[in-house]
Amino acid sequence: MSTDGSVLDKISASQGLLAVTSGEFPTVLHQLLAPWHHCGDSLPLLLGGMVGSQQGWREAPYVSVPASVASLSEKLVLVELGNGQSGWIVPGFSAINQAGLPDVMRGEELQLLGLAALAPTPRLRAILPGTHSKHAVLCGDVVQSFNTFMTGELFSLLKHHSILGRQLPVQQPCQTSFLKGVDASLEGGLSQVLFSVRTLRLFEQIPIQAVESYLSGLLIGSELAALKGAGTPLFVVGDEGLCQWYLLAMEWLGVHAEFISGDRCFLVGMTQIYQQLKESRHVS
Amino acid sequence: MSTDGSVLDKISASQGLLAVTSGEFPTVLHQLLAPWHHCGDSLPLLLGGMVGSQQGWREAPYVSVPASVASLSEKLVLVELGNGQSGWIVPGFSAINQAGLPDVMRGEELQLLGLAALAPTPRLRAILPGTHSKHAVLCGDVVQSFNTFMTGELFSLLKHHSILGRQLPVQQPCQTSFLKGVDASLEGGLSQVLFSVRTLRLFEQIPIQAVESYLSGLLIGSELAALKGAGTPLFVVGDEGLCQWYLLAMEWLGVHAEFISGDRCFLVGMTQIYQQLKESRHVS
Repeated sequence: MSTDGSVLDKISASQGLLAVTSGEFPTVLHQLLAPWHHCGDSLPLLLGGMVGSQQGWREAPYVSVPASVASLSEKLVLVELGNGQSGWIVPGFSAINQAGLPDVMRGEELQLLGLAALAPTPRLRAILPGTHSKHAVLCGDVVQSFNTFMTGELFSLLKHHSILGRQLPVQQPCQTSFLKGVDASLEGGLSQVLFSVRTLRLFEQIPIQAVESYLSGLLIGSELAALKGAGTPLFVVGDEGLCQWYLLAMEWLGVHAEFISGDRCFLVGMTQIYQQLKESRHVS
Repeated sequence: MSTDGSVLDKISASQGLLAVTSGEFPTVLHQLLAPWHHCGDSLPLLLGGMVGSQQGWREAPYVSVPASVASLSEKLVLVELGNGQSGWIVPGFSAINQAGLPDVMRGEELQLLGLAALAPTPRLRAILPGTHSKHAVLCGDVVQSFNTFMTGELFSLLKHHSILGRQLPVQQPCQTSFLKGVDASLEGGLSQVLFSVRTLRLFEQIPIQAVESYLSGLLIGSELAALKGAGTPLFVVGDEGLCQWYLLAMEWLGVHAEFISGDRCFLVGMTQIYQQLKESRHVS
């Protein structure tokens, strides 16, 4: 990233937390960053997400919300890269959520900080769809509260391992079936309406190629039932393909929301952390 | 079974629908019943459950509720056993459930008919816990409506395939954690509260050996949230071990219910069907 926040180059690898043996983090990072070795070893390095979890490189304890960018950058955890260089792990957030239960995030906090900078309003709500979808409330650059919904993981489990996904032909995205699922989600609790994925297929009331779209509508609809705070600006942050389904459901439910790229928010969030770090003179 | 409904002998095999190749049903049945061949081939044979599904031996189309014992026994489907003998498949029920969605059962209808005979009241509610738990309303021997909850399947999926069940030590049943889960289920929709299985473990607010008990409480609590019809007698029908957890949750929630053995209800239900069949002179 250049100092103005634009991306100069990008390296991606599908090498998650569970693929790295404990103690091997510096080596794996060194290998991943090999294409940038010609830039010298002086680039500042910030790390976010599960790398700071108990099972990660080094634990970066959660910061309790309400919390701001500043509070995150004060709690960065230093790691040695093994070549004299060092990096900083950004901690995640913890909260007591809307349901009064403990909640955590790692990685999404950077998107939220970026969102706060990109959409400066006194108060906003954000939905970050994904395996563990997050709903958050922000006041300025302070994350006030958030709640995790296991929507993406439930979809994957039910599709791959349950009776609902058994012996399905190749699936096609179908807006009508998706919205039928959203409607059904309004009629009862999730465990009460979920079996309709089976019965609507059995009675041919949804196309057999659209069973997953209906399931997706049911799950996203159930998630959106928790939306509170009408009148507060609402943003959907993440991958555009997935976010479009959330926006479609919300339009259907009469809820206005705006899309912002999750990658863009992440970079702006990381830039904020970096600026704070620079100001506190930890790095040049 | 003797003519008074008592069990003379029993054969069990864990050989479900998916284990039998289409067309092989008569052969498999013949092998299963080998220990009874010395009784001669004249015993009447009634078959219930998935054997009558689209993927079963022969499809026995669903009977729509409201429906009684009589309506089921009028819709029995004849199958030839291949040795000159025949049997009757009992059809399942279909319904439009509480959520206004199509619903089905196969096998549980026999337990419901047995329950109606064992607990004759003008109106009762029944919960049949299991992989696909059923809630039903009966008026006399007429099944009025029912609703399926995927509680058992969700528990198994989340335990075996989700992040919630990952790297757990051997689990111990724990009533305190179970009831903590029931309490949590009251605080939000299932997808909203489910992640607390992860966070309560992370923050050591439930014993690591009791994670599954907490998950079970969450799921059963979510299912019981749909209970309506206070004042109507409520029965929990099934395996005693599983039903005790439902009864514990209901006692905690201040809901009175009574346990009846699912096997006993099944046998009484089958006997009812057999009596109807005899009266209509299909069998001696």
